Amino acid sequence: MSCTAIYSVVASARLIYDEWWNDLGTVPHYFRRDIYVRCEVVAIGTELLLGIINDTNSSWIGEQMALAGIDSFYQVKVGDNFDRIEAALRTALERSDAVICCGGLGPTQDDITRDVIAKIMGGGMQRDDEIGAEIRRRFESRGRHMTENNLRQADVPVGARTIEQMPGTAPGLVCPIGDKVIYAVPGVPREMKTMMEGTILDDLRERAGDTGVIRYRVLRTWGLSESGLAEILADRIDALDESGEATLAFQASGIEGIKLRIVVKRDDEATAKAALDAEEAVIRPLLGDAIFGVDEENMEVAVIQQLRARSLTMATIETLTGGILSSRLTAADLDMETFIGGSVWPVAAIPGQVAGDAPDARAMALALKARNDFGTDVGLAAITPEPHEGFAPATIVMAVAIGEKTYSDTVIWYPDRERMRSYTVISLLDFLRRTLAAN
Amino acid sequence: MSCTAIYSVVASARLIYDEWWNDLGTVPHYFRRDIYVRCEVVAIGTELLLGIINDTNSSWIGEQMALAGIDSFYQVKVGDNFDRIEAALRTALERSDAVICCGGLGPTQDDITRDVIAKIMGGGMQRDDEIGAEIRRRFESRGRHMTENNLRQADVPVGARTIEQMPGTAPGLVCPIGDKVIYAVPGVPREMKTMMEGTILDDLRERAGDTGVIRYRVLRTWGLSESGLAEILADRIDALDESGEATLAFQASGIEGIKLRIVVKRDDEATAKAALDAEEAVIRPLLGDAIFGVDEENMEVAVIQQLRARSLTMATIETLTGGILSSRLTAADLDMETFIGGSVWPVAAIPGQVAGDAPDARAMALALKARNDFGTDVGLAAITPEPHEGFAPATIVMAVAIGEKTYSDTVIWYPDRERMRSYTVISLLDFLRRTLAAN
Repeated sequence: MSCTAIYSVVASARLIYDEWWNDLGTVPHYFRRDIYVRCEVVAIGTELLLGIINDTNSSWIGEQMALAGIDSFYQVKVGDNFDRIEAALRTALERSDAVICCGGLGPTQDDITRDVIAKIMGGGMQRDDEIGAEIRRRFESRGRHMTENNLRQADVPVGARTIEQMPGTAPGLVCPIGDKVIYAVPGVPREMKTMMEGTILDDLRERAGDTGVIRYRVLRTWGLSESGLAEILADRIDALDESGEATLAFQASGIEGIKLRIVVKRDDEATAKAALDAEEAVIRPLLGDAIFGVDEENMEVAVIQQLRARSLTMATIETLTGGILSSRLTAADLDMETFIGGSVWPVAAIPGQVAGDAPDARAMALALKARNDFGTDVGLAAITPEPHEGFAPATIVMAVAIGEKTYSDTVIWYPDRERMRSYTVISLLDFLRRTLAAN
Repeated sequence: MSCTAIYSVVASARLIYDEWWNDLGTVPHYFRRDIYVRCEVVAIGTELLLGIINDTNSSWIGEQMALAGIDSFYQVKVGDNFDRIEAALRTALERSDAVICCGGLGPTQDDITRDVIAKIMGGGMQRDDEIGAEIRRRFESRGRHMTENNLRQADVPVGARTIEQMPGTAPGLVCPIGDKVIYAVPGVPREMKTMMEGTILDDLRERAGDTGVIRYRVLRTWGLSESGLAEILADRIDALDESGEATLAFQASGIEGIKLRIVVKRDDEATAKAALDAEEAVIRPLLGDAIFGVDEENMEVAVIQQLRARSLTMATIETLTGGILSSRLTAADLDMETFIGGSVWPVAAIPGQVAGDAPDARAMALALKARNDFGTDVGLAAITPEPHEGFAPATIVMAVAIGEKTYSDTVIWYPDRERMRSYTVISLLDFLRRTLAAN
């Protein structure tokens, strides 16, 4: 039984960001040389101020802008009130070059973003018949009745243009005001994101005289601490600082792992993709099997895919993690074709434990029992040793059974129950991933 | 087998708020008559703009202010930059009477909120030796070494006073500026909340010439739709509109149930509490057993308490809900003394199902099996009927076994997998709660 202490995984992301992002603004230093556009976010909706809906759009937009090298110094929330939206937009236009204004584009009377922008642009409003016909068509194609107020969404301030991507029934708007601009997008996250990625980020960067594309890729890791990752990658980071070919940044993300983000800037999409591929090819050998997934692929998805590729099924027995492991596995395997089942037991009543056995033997017996209970190929379990067994506090003994073969490993956490639960879930799955890869 | 359709539970909270809160501002109309303080929130931290941390503090503060009858028209996020924090605070002071400024009170060099406020107040900074000693004492009591930079947290702008509640090592500040005020609180949610509830909300209301106290209580309900609740309470709401004794508002909160909030305003704490008790006593008979909990008491907590009071243990078998039920029950019963265990199975492989049995018989057999598998008094299970059995789409059949007795009930949801999972968890527990109460 080997003992892997990844205690420092619990360090906050803050330390890393203090290194990679300078505290003068919101943009990595390597972008500072050629970007001068400042863009501010104004989120619109009384329900945001009241705390009925939490504004997650602004955070997401802030992250995208940082990645695109756009300065963003303020984010503002304001209610559905004409005068105050106008005041917020005018203040934003004074101190920034561009404003992304999110929400208030719907069909109802309190959706007044369009009207406020029309007033600021000073040229009134014009109905776009093509957009109107498109809205009507979308209602009809879903067999829904369209009330006339939905056509308000086809009203466009004179001088503005609509954004090409239109995933819902509210078009987004690009509204030039002198040499500045207001972008208006719906508050529905999916619609907002499509317009940001399809039009606004590129438009912003074009305004910055910056015609290249910036693209990123996230490599998800587990098993190394942030400082461990930083140490392994130190030479590569130095080399990239020198060459400017790419930037690397870490972010500890709890049960989602520690993310390593590669950011590149190139003349076009194809070259950017090739550069990401090239950088990934340099990093993979350095980090080896610490990398478990790319972009949105979390540990559950990675493990389910790995099992499917080998036509294996799995089952679990949980104690400390109390059902979190099962609920995450079912979320990754909705029809439970690979994750065939799990059970949850109190520490004091774990079945099939032989008193006197060492913790690793008990954990392995439990993994075998998970496998037998649900008739699967693979079983997974984790236990906490008894206080008298002399382990460090917050030690977790993990076990995997593949067929009749069993394996165990140990991790030690910071003794905080919530963190122990999260980290045990990802570590146990990671242990299975590594064991499968080695077999 | 009875069939309860609570389909309309999925209606959004928005409709309710459109009725109860007017869209002109952020404050229920009944508070408008005697309040004139406007307070704005400024959240400080580069990591908020970058999307590394999502700002949930502002939403919470917004909700509390709305409940306290304080107007709040803007919320702003700004990075750890002296000039921009100063600009944001000055803008906020221009358009509002008070500013709550959240974050940047820590011991490190980028925690500069204190310094910015000292500049705005114009009187420099003074170290508070009592606070300094208290910070030192707190480090010592935890056996941790205190570095000197932690004493920066004892620096207080001249003219400001510290907030009495101090759950962490950073004191909060009340900073009068002419007839206006800046409150500074830490960004740690728990610390911020303690200071808001202990000092700031009351101070704000005193500034509004409003010396009474506003208190609220949440009654959590399940089993009635929002419109059903509104219909039952219509006469009472009319009577309260007339008398002004209290206000009622609903909020649909997913797996947390539909919340009914009673808000009262009285001269002092004791009278306010008595008024809440009185209003609760009027409402309880109207809603009967739809009320399952008060304030933070969620359905899991309610059910675990009910079982404990009767010295009963319970177990579950899950299919559709894939471990969510178990993970929520273990969160409410950390040592699994009452919730003794659960297992998760694919729909296609639920054990102990007799083909040809009706869905309610199969569900009840499963609840009995949960009870037997884990050796408990109570068993809980839910299944989805087969397509050929002729039930409406998104029908769930729930079953409870108490000893050898079994019970079943049916709910029909909007056919959305995520919602079905959440609502099935709370409905199944609610079914147990009602069945226990009737036995």
